[in-house]
Amino acid sequence: MFFERVVSEGLAHFSYVVGDKGEAVVLDPRRDVSVYFDICLSNDSRIKFVLETHRNEDYVVGSREISDRCDGSVFHADSQLNYRYGGEVVEGDEFKVGDLLIKAIKTPGHTPGSMSYLLYDKDGGPWILFTGDSLFAGGVGRTDLLGSQMVEEMTEMLYQSIFRKILPIGDEVIVCPAHGSGSACGASISDRDWSTIGIERMRNPMLQVEDKDEFIEKVGVELKRPPYFRRMEELNLYPPVLKRLPVPTPLKPKEVKERLNGYQILDTRTELEFGSAHLMNSISIMSKNLPSFAGWFLNYEEPVLLITNDVENNVKKLIRLGYDNIQGYLSGGLLSWHTSGYRTKSIDTITVHKLCQKIDRGKVNHILDIRDEEELNRDGEIEGSIQIELTKLTENTDKIPKDGELYIFCGSGIRSMTAASVLERYGFNNLNVVLGGLAGWSSRKKDIV
Amino acid sequence: MFFERVVSEGLAHFSYVVGDKGEAVVLDPRRDVSVYFDICLSNDSRIKFVLETHRNEDYVVGSREISDRCDGSVFHADSQLNYRYGGEVVEGDEFKVGDLLIKAIKTPGHTPGSMSYLLYDKDGGPWILFTGDSLFAGGVGRTDLLGSQMVEEMTEMLYQSIFRKILPIGDEVIVCPAHGSGSACGASISDRDWSTIGIERMRNPMLQVEDKDEFIEKVGVELKRPPYFRRMEELNLYPPVLKRLPVPTPLKPKEVKERLNGYQILDTRTELEFGSAHLMNSISIMSKNLPSFAGWFLNYEEPVLLITNDVENNVKKLIRLGYDNIQGYLSGGLLSWHTSGYRTKSIDTITVHKLCQKIDRGKVNHILDIRDEEELNRDGEIEGSIQIELTKLTENTDKIPKDGELYIFCGSGIRSMTAASVLERYGFNNLNVVLGGLAGWSSRKKDIV
Amino acid sequence: MFFERVVSEGLAHFSYVVGDKGEAVVLDPRRDVSVYFDICLSNDSRIKFVLETHRNEDYVVGSREISDRCDGSVFHADSQLNYRYGGEVVEGDEFKVGDLLIKAIKTPGHTPGSMSYLLYDKDGGPWILFTGDSLFAGGVGRTDLLGSQMVEEMTEMLYQSIFRKILPIGDEVIVCPAHGSGSACGASISDRDWSTIGIERMRNPMLQVEDKDEFIEKVGVELKRPPYFRRMEELNLYPPVLKRLPVPTPLKPKEVKERLNGYQILDTRTELEFGSAHLMNSISIMSKNLPSFAGWFLNYEEPVLLITNDVENNVKKLIRLGYDNIQGYLSGGLLSWHTSGYRTKSIDTITVHKLCQKIDRGKVNHILDIRDEEELNRDGEIEGSIQIELTKLTENTDKIPKDGELYIFCGSGIRSMTAASVLERYGFNNLNVVLGGLAGWSSRKKDIV
Amino acid sequence: MFFERVVSEGLAHFSYVVGDKGEAVVLDPRRDVSVYFDICLSNDSRIKFVLETHRNEDYVVGSREISDRCDGSVFHADSQLNYRYGGEVVEGDEFKVGDLLIKAIKTPGHTPGSMSYLLYDKDGGPWILFTGDSLFAGGVGRTDLLGSQMVEEMTEMLYQSIFRKILPIGDEVIVCPAHGSGSACGASISDRDWSTIGIERMRNPMLQVEDKDEFIEKVGVELKRPPYFRRMEELNLYPPVLKRLPVPTPLKPKEVKERLNGYQILDTRTELEFGSAHLMNSISIMSKNLPSFAGWFLNYEEPVLLITNDVENNVKKLIRLGYDNIQGYLSGGLLSWHTSGYRTKSIDTITVHKLCQKIDRGKVNHILDIRDEEELNRDGEIEGSIQIELTKLTENTDKIPKDGELYIFCGSGIRSMTAASVLERYGFNNLNVVLGGLAGWSSRKKDIV
Repeated sequence: MFFERVVSEGLAHFSYVVGDKGEAVVLDPRRDVSVYFDICLSNDSRIKFVLETHRNEDYVVGSREISDRCDGSVFHADSQLNYRYGGEVVEGDEFKVGDLLIKAIKTPGHTPGSMSYLLYDKDGGPWILFTGDSLFAGGVGRTDLLGSQMVEEMTEMLYQSIFRKILPIGDEVIVCPAHGSGSACGASISDRDWSTIGIERMRNPMLQVEDKDEFIEKVGVELKRPPYFRRMEELNLYPPVLKRLPVPTPLKPKEVKERLNGYQILDTRTELEFGSAHLMNSISIMSKNLPSFAGWFLNYEEPVLLITNDVENNVKKLIRLGYDNIQGYLSGGLLSWHTSGYRTKSIDTITVHKLCQKIDRGKVNHILDIRDEEELNRDGEIEGSIQIELTKLTENTDKIPKDGELYIFCGSGIRSMTAASVLERYGFNNLNVVLGGLAGWSSRKKDIV
Repeated sequence: MFFERVVSEGLAHFSYVVGDKGEAVVLDPRRDVSVYFDICLSNDSRIKFVLETHRNEDYVVGSREISDRCDGSVFHADSQLNYRYGGEVVEGDEFKVGDLLIKAIKTPGHTPGSMSYLLYDKDGGPWILFTGDSLFAGGVGRTDLLGSQMVEEMTEMLYQSIFRKILPIGDEVIVCPAHGSGSACGASISDRDWSTIGIERMRNPMLQVEDKDEFIEKVGVELKRPPYFRRMEELNLYPPVLKRLPVPTPLKPKEVKERLNGYQILDTRTELEFGSAHLMNSISIMSKNLPSFAGWFLNYEEPVLLITNDVENNVKKLIRLGYDNIQGYLSGGLLSWHTSGYRTKSIDTITVHKLCQKIDRGKVNHILDIRDEEELNRDGEIEGSIQIELTKLTENTDKIPKDGELYIFCGSGIRSMTAASVLERYGFNNLNVVLGGLAGWSSRKKDIV
Repeated sequence: MFFERVVSEGLAHFSYVVGDKGEAVVLDPRRDVSVYFDICLSNDSRIKFVLETHRNEDYVVGSREISDRCDGSVFHADSQLNYRYGGEVVEGDEFKVGDLLIKAIKTPGHTPGSMSYLLYDKDGGPWILFTGDSLFAGGVGRTDLLGSQMVEEMTEMLYQSIFRKILPIGDEVIVCPAHGSGSACGASISDRDWSTIGIERMRNPMLQVEDKDEFIEKVGVELKRPPYFRRMEELNLYPPVLKRLPVPTPLKPKEVKERLNGYQILDTRTELEFGSAHLMNSISIMSKNLPSFAGWFLNYEEPVLLITNDVENNVKKLIRLGYDNIQGYLSGGLLSWHTSGYRTKSIDTITVHKLCQKIDRGKVNHILDIRDEEELNRDGEIEGSIQIELTKLTENTDKIPKDGELYIFCGSGIRSMTAASVLERYGFNNLNVVLGGLAGWSSRKKDIV
Repeated sequence: MFFERVVSEGLAHFSYVVGDKGEAVVLDPRRDVSVYFDICLSNDSRIKFVLETHRNEDYVVGSREISDRCDGSVFHADSQLNYRYGGEVVEGDEFKVGDLLIKAIKTPGHTPGSMSYLLYDKDGGPWILFTGDSLFAGGVGRTDLLGSQMVEEMTEMLYQSIFRKILPIGDEVIVCPAHGSGSACGASISDRDWSTIGIERMRNPMLQVEDKDEFIEKVGVELKRPPYFRRMEELNLYPPVLKRLPVPTPLKPKEVKERLNGYQILDTRTELEFGSAHLMNSISIMSKNLPSFAGWFLNYEEPVLLITNDVENNVKKLIRLGYDNIQGYLSGGLLSWHTSGYRTKSIDTITVHKLCQKIDRGKVNHILDIRDEEELNRDGEIEGSIQIELTKLTENTDKIPKDGELYIFCGSGIRSMTAASVLERYGFNNLNVVLGGLAGWSSRKKDIV
C-alpha cells in the first residue's frame, strides 16, 4: 500500500496517488504528470483510475495527459457538463485499487456536481476522505463560481454536503482536500496540511455555526475571481495533450529587443532586482506568486517571453495555467541586456524606516495600499492611504494621483512591485515600493488604524 | 509550517521533522542524518530540538549526529537511564517551535520512560500525537523488552498509557508512530501509514478488549528478540558520532579471496543470484531484508565484506544498526570472481510446480518450514514439515536431518535462501530453496493443513 | 565556450554538444534528446544546428526529435540518399556557432557521403575534428556496409579520406569520433577515449600500412552485420518523432501469462538470475549487452515485454534501436511470478573449476564456443569445442548435438546465457553455461590451443 | 578505463580522475572530495594514488581529505617543503593504475618543485600530460610567487621545463592543465578547455618567442597576488581534515542584527539586488566571483555570515579557500529583514544609456574605473576616469574624491558593486554603479580612448 500527496506550490494544489498491489489511482492530477508515473514506477504500479473531484477552475487538469500515456480510465465529477473525454461518476460508484476500495459521495456546493471520494482501509473501515474543494483544513470551498444569483443556493448545497454527508462519516477519518493554504478556491485555508473530519468539525471556523442560515451568511460571499478561471473551465472540458513540456528558446538581448511588441514580457525575479532594472513594459510577478497572479495579468493571446532565473519551474507554473505559448527567455538575464548597452527602467524602493522619516518630515504625498479586504480587516489599515487591491488596479487607475511621489504598500513588498510594474505601463512615474510592506511597518510599531 | 515523515525502509522506521517560522524539531532521527538537514535547508529552518520518544533498541539513534552539526538541543525520554548526552524530558515539558507547541506526555509500557509528544495546532487545538513505540497503526509496542518477569507489569503500564492518556485526547487527533508495518518493535502493525486516535480506538485489534486483563493477555507476550537489540540499547546511551558515512573499499577478487577468514561475507543479492553462485561461507540476506535480519546473523566483532549491487544503500542500512566496520565490497561482483577462475558454491532452487510433481512421485524427503508462529497460524502449516523459524535455526541444527534432499519453505523464497546459506555453513548438503514459498504453494492450491 | 561529450553506453556511441555565446551545435544526437536540452539550458544556449556525420545504421538518430522541440536546423551528410527532412551538407560548408567555426570535410568510405566536421578555435587554428565513423581511436570505420562487391571501392575511398584529408590536418588536432570501444561500426576500437590525429597517425594499428593496398587488405573485410542495421538505415531517412519516451505498463504475473504468445519476452537480468529461473521462451540479454545484441535477436513486428530490474534505462536502450512498441514489464519481477505459483525454467551454470574436474574425469560431452573469430584468434581456442559464434547460432542449430551435456563458453559467461536461452527455444536440453567463460578458464591456466 | 575532469567553477580549477581495472588516481583534488568517490564508486574503482602537481596557492588541496576516507597514497611535488603528510615524488617516479602507467616529470618554474605527470596509453605511447600550473591552454603558470627577486630565475626554469621537457614529448599528446580560463594562477588562459602539446607549441601566445630572453621578458612579470595565497601555502602543508561540510545555521533577522559586529557579512546576491538593498557593512561578492575575490576581501579571523540564495554552493566555494568558520546565513533573505522593519542601505545603479545622457549634459563628476591593467590595455580606457583596480582599492581610497557623484565602472557592473560595497564601508556616499560596465559602454559606441 502506498499513499503520496503531490503539492503544486503557489497553486497550493494537492493531488494524490494511492496504490495497492500494483494498481494505483490518481486524484485531481496536475498537467505536468511525470511525477505520478515516477511514483507509480517506484512502486511497481500501474495507474488504473484517474478521479476528478470536480471541474477545476484554477488549473488545467492532467487527466488526459495521463490517459495519453497509459490505459488508465478517467472519471470526472460534474458530469452534467459537456466533457469530451472520460467517464462519469455517480454517487455510490466504487473503485477497487488492489485491496482498497474507494466510494464516490456526491458533495455539491463548490460546483454543482462535486464529488468526494472515501477511501476504505483493508479492514473495511472508512479511512481517508478526499474532499476536493468541498472541505478544506480551516475553510470550505467557495460557492460563488456560478455567479451571485446562485450563491445562496450553492452555499445551501454545500451546507448539506458538509453537515449531512461529510461530518457524519466520523471524526476519526482523515481529510485530504485538493488545496492547502494560499489557494484561490477557498477563503482563509489553514496551513494545517493534515487534518481529520473531527478537527474540522470542532475547529474549522466556517463550521462553527448555529444553523444553515448562519453558514450561508458566513460562506455565501463572493470572492475575487481571477479572469483566467473562465479559461480553465473551458479548457478542462477537453484539455489539450502536451506530451512534453515546451522548451523555450534562449533569446539574445538583440532578439528580445526585436520582440518587445506583440509579446508579454513576464519578469519573475525578486522585487529588488526588478526595482533596480527591468525591461520596459515588463510585468513583475515573482516566481512564487506566479500561480496566484499570472491569471490576473497575463492574457492568453500573446506569446509569453520570460525574464527569469529558473526557466524550468516557471514554465511548469505557466503551463499548469494553460499558458502553453512560451516563446523564449532572455538568455544571460539582465546582465547580458546591460552589457549590450540597452536601456532599462527602474522603480524606486524604500524601507519602512526611511518612509517613516519622510512621513515625520511631512514629505510623503500618497500611499497606495493594494492589500485585499481580508488583509485590511485582519492587519489594519494605513491612515490616509488610497486602497485599491492589486487585482482591481487596472480598472481603477483613475483613482490614483499622478502628481507627487506614490508609496505602494502590500504585505511584504512583493505584490507592490507587481502593482508598480502595472502602473508604470499606465504611464505613472514617481513610484516607490515599500520594502517589507505592512509587516515591516508593524514591526516598527507605526500606528495602524 | 512544514511537516515531513522520513521513512527508513526495512526497519519500517518513521522519523519526523516539523517546523514553523525558521525553527524545526526532529523526532527520533536515524543515524544518517543529512536528510533532516536537507529538509530544514529547503525550508530555511534550523533544528532547534531533537526529541526521542524512548530509548531505541532496533536502530542507532541519530541525535548526537545531529547535535554534532548544529546547536539543536537533544531531549530523551527514558531519562532514568545512564545517558551520557542530551537533556531529560518529563511529563508536561513544553517545546515551542515557531508558533507551534509540543507537550510531552509520559506513556510508559514499551519502555519504562516512553514519552509521547502532542503537537498543538496554531489554533491551540491538539493536532498530531507522536506516539513513538506506544501505539502503532493496528498494533501496540511490545512490552517484553525488560524480560519475561516484567511483561505483565509493563503491559499494564501500556494499558494505562493508551486507555487513560492517549485515547482520551480525542478521536480526531492524528497518530504518528515511530514504526510502520514490518517493524520488530510491535506485532502485526498495519500498513495504514496514516491514522488517528479514533481509527485506532475503533479498529486497532489490540485495543478491542473488554478490560485490562484481556489487554494483558493479548499484548503481554514475548516476541522474537534479535540479539542486536542489546547492542543498540547500549550504543544508544552514547552513540558514536560518524560525521560521514564509511566509504567501503572496492576489492578485487584476489583481495577478497585473501580476506575470506576473519571477515563476515554478507551477500545482499537476490535469492536467485545467490542460489546460482556465491562465495563460500557467505550469508545471504537480500537488501530489503537487511534491516530485519542483519541483527540476527551478523556479529559486531568481525569486519563486514559486502557482495552487493548497491553499496551505498546497504552501507546506510548497516550503519543504522551499528555495523560501522564495513571493510570493502567485491568489485565487479560475481562476474569478476568467476572470470578470475575462482570457485563458487550454489544452492538448488525449485519451483512449487516441480516440487508438487516430486511430492506426487514420493520423491521429497524432508521439508523445512522456517516461517514464524504468526505466519504458521495465519497462513497454515505444511503437512509433514519440520518447523524451525529462521531466527532459531542456528541453535536447532540438530533437529534437521542430514540425509536426503531438504526443501526449505518460507513465505516467498527469500528468507529460505538466508536459511540455506546458514545451513550450508553448518555443513548441510542437498539444500533446495522453494521459489515462491508458501505463497506460490497456496496459489497452486496445494493442501495446507 | 562549452564542450560536452554524451556517451550512450552499450552502443559506445558518442554525440557532442559544442556551444559559444548562446549558440550550440549538436553532432550525431541520439533519440532520447532531453540530455542535449539540459546541457544547453544550463549553458543558457540554443541549439542552432544539428549535424550528422553520416547516415547511421546502428541507432535511430535524434535529429528530428530535436528539431521538433526548437528551431535548430538539421544537416545531414550522405545527402544523395532520399532524406525526407533537414538540409544537405557539402564539402566546405561552414557553420558559425558563436565565435566558433565548423567546416565540413567530405570523408567517404564508411558510407558514400560521410562528412567530418573540423572545429576551429577562436584563434583561427584547427582544434577538434569530429570524424564520425571514418576514424576511431585505434580503428577505422567498417567499409562493408554496401555489400561485399563494394568493399574494395569503399575502402579505397576511406584510405583517401584518412591519408589525404584527415592526417594532413595536423598531429595536434583532437579527434572526436562517433564511437568508442565496443561499437559495431568498426573493428577493435581502443578504449583511449580521447585522442589526436597524431596519436592515430602513429599508433592506430589500421594506419600502420605501407600503402593503399595494404590498407585495403587490412580494412576491407566484412564484419558481422546485425540484421537491425537495415531497419536503422530506413528509419534514419525519416525517423518518427516520439515527443516522449514510452511508459511501459507494469503487468501482473497473470497478465504476463496471458501474453506469452505474440510477444517477445526480453529478460535483461544477470546470467545468474536467468539461469536460476526464467519464463518459458524468454530471451536473455543482460542490460549492458542490450544495445549490441537486441538487434540480432529481437524482431520489429512483435511487441516487447520486459523482465527487468531497470525499466527506465532498458526502455531508452530499446528506443534507441527503434523498438518503440514496448508493451509492459513483469511487475514485481520473478518473485511475484513464483509467489503466483507459476512455473519457470532454469539453465544450469557451472564454474570453470568444476568443469575442469568433470573434464579430468572424462565426463564432458560437448563444448560449444560461441565467441567470434577475433576472440578466437586473440584469446585462443578450446580443444575439441564446436565453434559457432553467437550471432550465427540460429542458422546453425543443426550442427549442435542434442545428446549429452552441452557446455557453452563465451568470454565471461554472459553471452553464453543468451545462447542458452536461444537454444532452449529450439528444444535443446542439458545446457550448461560456463561461468567466467574463457577468462575464468585462462585464469585457471587450463590449456588453450 | 575511465577519465574524468572535475571542474571547480570560479577557481577555474581542473582536477582529474583516471582509472583502469578497479584502480584510480586523482590529480590535484579539491577539498570537497565526495565527487571523486562518487566517480570511483560508479566505476567500481578504488583510489590508489593522489598526485599533486605542486604546492597550491589558490585553494586548499583535498589530498588529506581523500586519504582520511580510504587507503590511497598521497604524493606531492615541491617536496623540499615542510610537508607533514604524504610521500615525495621525484623525477622518473612511476605509478601503475591498472594497465596504465604514469611517469613524473619535473617541470619547475611556477613553483620550484612543480611536477608534470605523463600518462601512457595501454599501447605504451605517451597520451595525456597533466601539466599542473606549468603549461595552460593559451598561457603558462605565473613565475612570481617567490617574489620579484626570484622572477627571472623562476621564469628561466619554466622556459627550460616547457621548451626542453614538455614540448619534445610530442605534438600529438593531450594537455590537461590544473586550470582553465579565469584562474589567478596564470595570465590570459584561453577557454580552449581541451588542448594538445602541438596546439600550445604553435598557438599559445606565450610560447611564440624567439629565445629564452624573449620568454623571460614576456612571462616574467608580477601579477596580482591575492593576500589569501599566503594562507593557502601554509594550509597546504597540512590541511585540516573536515570530514563533512559545515552546516551553517539559518539565522533570523533579529539574530543577524545581534551579530553585525565581529562577523564578516558576505552578500553573494546579484549586483541589482545588492544595489537595491543590503545590510550595513556587508560586502558584495556575487556567487560566481566568490572564488576569485573572497581571498581579497575576507579575512581568516572573523566568522562569516552569509546573505545568499544558495547556501550549499557558496559554502563549498568558501571552504575551498579555507574559510571554514561559516556561522550562519540570513534565513528568509532580505525579505525577512525588511518585514522585520530593519533598515538597509542601497547603492544607486545607472545604465550606460542614462550615464551617457548625463555626460552629455555635463553632469558627471567623477568616473572610477576599477578594471585591471590587462583589461585597460585590451579594451581601452575611459577618458578622464580615475583608474584604481578593484584589488588595490582599500589602500588607495585617498585618491578617490568624496565630493560629487562617483560613477564606478568595471567590465559588466558586477565587480563595481563589490567596489561600491567596499567604499561604502569607508564612508563614501553618492556611489553609482554603472550597469553593463565597459561592455555596455562599448555597445553604445561611446568613445573609448
